Amino acid sequence: MRTGRLEAFSDGVLAIIITIMVLELRVPEGHHLSDLVHTAGVGLLTYLLSFVYVGIYWNNHHHMFHLVRQVSGGVLWANLALLFCLSLFPFTTGWMDESRFEQTPVVVYGLNLLAAAVAYYILQTAIIRQQGADSPLRRAVGADVKGKISPVLYVAGTLSALAIDREGRVGVWIALGCFVGAAVLWIVPDRRIDRTVRETGIPE
Amino acid sequence: MRTGRLEAFSDGVLAIIITIMVLELRVPEGHHLSDLVHTAGVGLLTYLLSFVYVGIYWNNHHHMFHLVRQVSGGVLWANLALLFCLSLFPFTTGWMDESRFEQTPVVVYGLNLLAAAVAYYILQTAIIRQQGADSPLRRAVGADVKGKISPVLYVAGTLSALAIDREGRVGVWIALGCFVGAAVLWIVPDRRIDRTVRETGIPE
Amino acid sequence: MRTGRLEAFSDGVLAIIITIMVLELRVPEGHHLSDLVHTAGVGLLTYLLSFVYVGIYWNNHHHMFHLVRQVSGGVLWANLALLFCLSLFPFTTGWMDESRFEQTPVVVYGLNLLAAAVAYYILQTAIIRQQGADSPLRRAVGADVKGKISPVLYVAGTLSALAIDREGRVGVWIALGCFVGAAVLWIVPDRRIDRTVRETGIPE
Amino acid sequence: MRTGRLEAFSDGVLAIIITIMVLELRVPEGHHLSDLVHTAGVGLLTYLLSFVYVGIYWNNHHHMFHLVRQVSGGVLWANLALLFCLSLFPFTTGWMDESRFEQTPVVVYGLNLLAAAVAYYILQTAIIRQQGADSPLRRAVGADVKGKISPVLYVAGTLSALAIDREGRVGVWIALGCFVGAAVLWIVPDRRIDRTVRETGIPE
Repeated sequence: MRTGRLEAFSDGVLAIIITIMVLELRVPEGHHLSDLVHTAGVGLLTYLLSFVYVGIYWNNHHHMFHLVRQVSGGVLWANLALLFCLSLFPFTTGWMDESRFEQTPVVVYGLNLLAAAVAYYILQTAIIRQQGADSPLRRAVGADVKGKISPVLYVAGTLSALAIDREGRVGVWIALGCFVGAAVLWIVPDRRIDRTVRETGIPE
Repeated sequence: MRTGRLEAFSDGVLAIIITIMVLELRVPEGHHLSDLVHTAGVGLLTYLLSFVYVGIYWNNHHHMFHLVRQVSGGVLWANLALLFCLSLFPFTTGWMDESRFEQTPVVVYGLNLLAAAVAYYILQTAIIRQQGADSPLRRAVGADVKGKISPVLYVAGTLSALAIDREGRVGVWIALGCFVGAAVLWIVPDRRIDRTVRETGIPE
Repeated sequence: MRTGRLEAFSDGVLAIIITIMVLELRVPEGHHLSDLVHTAGVGLLTYLLSFVYVGIYWNNHHHMFHLVRQVSGGVLWANLALLFCLSLFPFTTGWMDESRFEQTPVVVYGLNLLAAAVAYYILQTAIIRQQGADSPLRRAVGADVKGKISPVLYVAGTLSALAIDREGRVGVWIALGCFVGAAVLWIVPDRRIDRTVRETGIPE
Repeated sequence: MRTGRLEAFSDGVLAIIITIMVLELRVPEGHHLSDLVHTAGVGLLTYLLSFVYVGIYWNNHHHMFHLVRQVSGGVLWANLALLFCLSLFPFTTGWMDESRFEQTPVVVYGLNLLAAAVAYYILQTAIIRQQGADSPLRRAVGADVKGKISPVLYVAGTLSALAIDREGRVGVWIALGCFVGAAVLWIVPDRRIDRTVRETGIPE
């Protein structure tokens, strides 16, 4: 089975996820700048963070499928599992935002990031296994440094939110720092796959 | 008429259905784990079930249209009827979830599953009739064991929710077991069509 | 400019319009069949009517663009005007439904149907003018009987809702009959364009 | 990397933005014409303005990518930044509408228009830089008169809303005039790029 419709469907789902999060932003009740900051100030920042994360996944998904020609049933389901994890972002982002970064919602957000990273890894592995010995995706991924650092950051953030200074919420801020840091890491585009595409040509 | 735009439109509708169900998940009022479990715990499980069902229909739709080159007006309307049935999932899932699996909402959910299965069968039949005597889809579908077992499970589940032990809700749990079982049955990808595609080539 | 992206964008907008109407269906408060009928019974029927109308427009749009190779800026804006009219369906359907078919909301729904028909006609005319003397779309449209009957039905329905028996609401039911009748008229696929495509080939 | 999936993803996001704004229109409580005018009258006009703006951006995006064959990582992120700015329209439109054109929401709407214009300019610049010395997009854009006038109008509108006659709201009406005027300016399609495409051919 060719990848065209899988990419189109994934694009559709990601486009909807990235956009409906804005429906969670409640319009301020008053009409002063303070109302905006009070009602939606935090929400805009968490929306931006989740927007960037969905953008990162779209970007990486896009890069990855440049090196894929055909997909099996297993890859289809691994892809749907990734989309399911990402589709929970509007919910976990909304809870983290409405609770103003209380401990449990931040931990749940971290677990959502971790689940998406694991699902992405499973999808990547399923494709590499399907492509066999001389998988172009395996060569492109290489040591996969970013793919290994970011789940470590999600786990570190989640654990520090759970363990460090529950009264003063220092751990929560460390967690948010980890989540923002991992996003910054990924905004730099993935030169490894760009290079492989240049060297081996885009599969048709 | 070629199938490209019908597939793109169906992908769009399915992508939206699968994603907007997450808008039905209400953000918990409190910020403790118990609030999450109480407010959204059941909702997450029913969302997962309906997500899997829409995924199954996308998957089967995707497989089926690999064997279709052109569509008539009748096929367009059969496809829209299928999309209509699937578009009711957010509504019936939301009611089943909010009622905490009361009898009537579970029955309505079962009827929705049944209506989608019937609409899919009508679409498949319309395509086979259009393709004529040596329909590649008919060969691919073959005995269609899964396509016959799953509506039986929907009917059995719906009837047991209606008839068995209305006080103790045993029938409702049997119904949910049938609905989950039919989903599990379909997650295994449809090797029949994969095989036909391999043998006869993808129609261009 | 080629038509691919205009079709993809229109498909996306139509797919969203047809699907978000289901978000207007409120989940019943109770869990009995009477709650479903009371809360969502009427809503399901109006949703079905508007779903069919959006399906008709997608279908006709799909047929029409089979005969179009390139689009000018004017056609792009005529297409956006059509999408704007159609995007109001969730709003006017929701009002008609919540008011339980009061006079004014039914009139507004009729005007929305009329506006969409006029926008479609303008789009068709813009394409025919752009295609010049031997426009394949003009030949395909021909006498355009349906395109002339349906706005007459919308106007007749709207006027009867305004004028006939405002107390007993007979006029409202005549209006709804006109709107359902015009939809039934269109469900029969447009054989004229099918024939032209067969005779002249699909433009590439 | 080729532009197909970037265009498809952008089309999806723009289609969703342009459509979900209609969800902000609240169904009137009563069923008289006065209820419609009172509840949704202003909302329909602001929805129309934002619909036109998203249509303009889709139109220009569509024209621009006709002259682009391949995109780098930087262009992907510039495109996501533009989509982020546009995705805030439902929120800022909703606030401006609910406040009935109070000063601060009008200023925020103007800043949103300005942010989208800046993001579009950055995207255009990133593409021109990537295309190098004989960039077809640079030739097509030329003096870019509209692209320079419209941000001036957004700034002028925002400043007049801030500075002129805060009691009588004259400044707010000047601002809205500027925002409507800039939209009218853009509805005229971009003949420069049409001409370049005709002269140099569409890149494949």
